[in-house]
Amino acid sequence: MQIRRLDTQAADFSAQLDALLDRAPELGAEVTRAVDEIIAQVRARGDAALLEYTQRFDRRSLSGVAELEVPRAQWQAAWEAQPQDLREALQAAATRIRAYAEQQKIAPFEFTDALGNRLGQQLRPLDRVGIYVPGGKAAYPSSVLMNAIPAKVAGVPEIIMVVPAPGGELNTVVLAAAHLAGVDRIFTIGGAQAVAALAYGTASVPAVDKIVGPGNAYVAAAKRAVFGRVGIDSIAGPSEILVISDAGSNPDWMAMDLFSQAEHGEDSESILISPDADFLDRVAEAMQRRVQSLPRAQTVRASIEGRGALIKVRDLAEACAISNHIAPEHLELAVEEPRALLPQIRHAGAIFIGRHTPEAFGDYCAGPNHVLPTSRAARYANPLGVYEFQKRSSLIECTPQGAQALAQIAGRIADAEGLQAHAQSARDRG
Amino acid sequence: MQIRRLDTQAADFSAQLDALLDRAPELGAEVTRAVDEIIAQVRARGDAALLEYTQRFDRRSLSGVAELEVPRAQWQAAWEAQPQDLREALQAAATRIRAYAEQQKIAPFEFTDALGNRLGQQLRPLDRVGIYVPGGKAAYPSSVLMNAIPAKVAGVPEIIMVVPAPGGELNTVVLAAAHLAGVDRIFTIGGAQAVAALAYGTASVPAVDKIVGPGNAYVAAAKRAVFGRVGIDSIAGPSEILVISDAGSNPDWMAMDLFSQAEHGEDSESILISPDADFLDRVAEAMQRRVQSLPRAQTVRASIEGRGALIKVRDLAEACAISNHIAPEHLELAVEEPRALLPQIRHAGAIFIGRHTPEAFGDYCAGPNHVLPTSRAARYANPLGVYEFQKRSSLIECTPQGAQALAQIAGRIADAEGLQAHAQSARDRG
Repeated sequence: MQIRRLDTQAADFSAQLDALLDRAPELGAEVTRAVDEIIAQVRARGDAALLEYTQRFDRRSLSGVAELEVPRAQWQAAWEAQPQDLREALQAAATRIRAYAEQQKIAPFEFTDALGNRLGQQLRPLDRVGIYVPGGKAAYPSSVLMNAIPAKVAGVPEIIMVVPAPGGELNTVVLAAAHLAGVDRIFTIGGAQAVAALAYGTASVPAVDKIVGPGNAYVAAAKRAVFGRVGIDSIAGPSEILVISDAGSNPDWMAMDLFSQAEHGEDSESILISPDADFLDRVAEAMQRRVQSLPRAQTVRASIEGRGALIKVRDLAEACAISNHIAPEHLELAVEEPRALLPQIRHAGAIFIGRHTPEAFGDYCAGPNHVLPTSRAARYANPLGVYEFQKRSSLIECTPQGAQALAQIAGRIADAEGLQAHAQSARDRG
Repeated sequence: MQIRRLDTQAADFSAQLDALLDRAPELGAEVTRAVDEIIAQVRARGDAALLEYTQRFDRRSLSGVAELEVPRAQWQAAWEAQPQDLREALQAAATRIRAYAEQQKIAPFEFTDALGNRLGQQLRPLDRVGIYVPGGKAAYPSSVLMNAIPAKVAGVPEIIMVVPAPGGELNTVVLAAAHLAGVDRIFTIGGAQAVAALAYGTASVPAVDKIVGPGNAYVAAAKRAVFGRVGIDSIAGPSEILVISDAGSNPDWMAMDLFSQAEHGEDSESILISPDADFLDRVAEAMQRRVQSLPRAQTVRASIEGRGALIKVRDLAEACAISNHIAPEHLELAVEEPRALLPQIRHAGAIFIGRHTPEAFGDYCAGPNHVLPTSRAARYANPLGVYEFQKRSSLIECTPQGAQALAQIAGRIADAEGLQAHAQSARDRG
C-alpha cells in the first residue's frame, strides 16, 4: 500500500494538500437532469410514478403501492429477532444519544425592553420529518438512531423513514433500530423518487416538512432540488477523519482510526498530522501491518492510496492551522494535552479529545450525532442535532405606551426607504 | 379595488385558499441554465468574468475591478451626509437589533456522563460572511442592519457586503447603514455573478463561508447552486402578512398593516382573518379609502387584488388552524387576548402580539430579525439570527476507564454493520 507523506516544509506543500482535498463532489448535469425528471413525474403522477421508479431502480416486482409500506409488526419482529447482546448495545447507544440530545434543546426566551415592550422567541418542533436511510450494503442501524432520536427529543410527532430495498432485500437490523428509535412509518423507497415523495407527498406517502439523512448522488441532487419546498439537513459528501497526534500515541491505534474512515469507501479521506517524523514512520508501518487483518482491506488500501496522507508539521500549532483549513468532519486530538489545542480549533464537525477517544465511539454510542458536516462544510454548518428539528418564531408585544417610540423610529426609516404604507402603519400606533 | 372575500363555511373554501397560496416561486429551467453558466465563468475566469457581467447587467462602464470596491471613506461620508433624525432612528434600530441578537446566542455546554467521560458542544463564529443587498429601488438600509448585526454579535471577524449599482447608482442610506452595522468591505456587484464571486472567491473578492440576504430569481438560483460550497440562509420568496383580528381592532390600522406588505410588490401576500363578518366589511371599506393616500397605490391595488384576502372564520381556533396551514412569514394577533392564542400557533416567522404591534415595527426596529422564512418555510425554518453565524463542534473526551464500556458497545454495533476497522478501533481502547 502506497502511503502519501507530506511535509509542511516542502515548497509545494500547499499545492499538494489542496490537490488532495479538492475532491468535493460536484453533481453532474446528467444527474441533475435525471433527478429533475423523476421529481416532476412523482409530483405530477404521485404513487404511480413512485411505483414505476421503485420497480425499475430497485428491481422489484410489486403488486401495488401498499406493498411499499413496512407493517409495524415486521419491525417489532425484527427487533425481537436480534441477538440479546446487539439489542443491549443498541439500547445503550440510544440512551446515550438521547441524553446528549436533551442537552442541545434550544430554549425559548422573553424579556422586557426599556419601553415596557415584550420581546422573545417561541420554540416549536417540526410537524413531520422524513429520514432517508440508504439501503443495500450501506444500510446502517446507527444512522437510524442518529437521525430519528434527536427528532423525537425535539418533540416531532411523526417521523417517516424511507429505505430502499434493492431486490426486495431489507436489513433487519435497520428495522430493529427504527423500532427502538421511535420511527412512526417506514416505506421501502429510495433515490430521488423517495425524496420527491417526501417533499410533495403522494396518496400513500405523506408530505414532510424536512428531509434528513445521507444518500448517493441522486439523493443529494434531489435534496438540493426540493430545498425550499421542505427543509434539508445538508448535502453529504464522503467521510473524513483528521488525526493530530504527538509521538506518545499508540501507532497501532492511529492506523486503525484512519482505517475506520477508509473502510467507508474509496473516496473517504484519512489524514494524520504529527510533528514527529519517526512517529509517522511507525504509523505507516502499523498501517501496512494492520490492513492485512481487515475484511475490507481492498477498499481501505484504495482509499488510503487515493485520499490518505501522513503530514509532518513543525509543531502542533501548525497542525491546528492545517486542521482549520481542512475543516474536517472528524478531528482526533491524540496528544498529551489535547485541551490546550481546543481553543485553536475553529472548524470541525466533532472533536475527539485524547488518546482514548477514537472516532468510532462517535459513530455509535458516545452520544453526539454522527451526522456531521463534510467537504469543508464544518466552516459554516452544524452536526445534526435537536435544533434541526426545532424552529423559532420571534415574539413582539408592544404596550400602547411602548409603541410610541417604535412608531417614530420605524416611521422615519420607512420614509427613507420610500415605503409609505410601512410608515403609516407604524405611525398609526404613535 | 377588488378585495377577495373567503368564508370557511363555503364548500370550496380549501380549494380557494390553496389556489391563493400556491404561488411558491419555482425557478425556471432558463434561469437555472443562465445562472449555471455565470457561476462556471466566474469560477473559471474570476475577476475578468465578474467585470464583464457587471458591465453588462448593471450597465456600467468600468476601467477595472478595483472600481468595484467602495472605499471606506465613502461609507463614512454617506453616514455623515444623512439627516440627524434618520441617523438617530438607524442608531436606535441598530441598538435594539443588537440587544435582541445578544439573547439568541447559542451557548457551549459540557457534562460528565456516568462513566466519567466528558461530552459537550463548542461554539465558534464563522470566519467570513457575505451579505447580499439588493440594489435599485429595493435597496433597503434596514436589510443591511438585519443581516450584518447578528453576524457581528456572533463574532464574525469579516463581513463582505455586495450590492449592485445599476447604472452606477448606489443608495447612500445603504452605505450609511453598512457603516453603522460594522460591515468590513463593500463591492458593487450583484446577481448570480456576485454570489459566485463570494462562493468561490476571485483575486479581488474574498471567498466567504456563508451567503445571506435576499435577491431576485437569479440570486436565489445562484444561492441554491453554490449551497454546499458555502452555507446559505434560505431561498427568499415574496413577503407575506397574515392578520388574525377580532372585532375590537381599528379597521384603519388593519387596512394599513395589510398594505405594508402589499406595497412590497404585486406578488406579496396579505390576508386578514376574522370571525366577525361586519368587521371584515369595515376593514374592506378602510382599505378602499386608505389606499388612495399611498404613493404606491397602484402596486398595493394589484397586490391586494392578486394575493389579498379577507377570510371569515367560525372562531379564533379556526383562525389559528388556517394560520398554521399558511405558515406565514409575519403573523399579527390583533385580538383582545392574544397570549391565549399563542400556544396554538405552530408555524410563523414572527408573531406580532396585540393591537399595538404592527408588522412594520418588526421590519425596522423592534429587535427581532426581519429576515424570515417565506413560502411556508416557517414549517421548518428559523428567522435569521445570531445562530446562523455560529456553529457547533461536538466534543467527546473519554477517560481510559470510561472508554471501556463504549468500546464494547461500539464494537458490537460495528460488527452488526460489517465495519471491522470501526470495531477494532473501538476495541483497541477496550
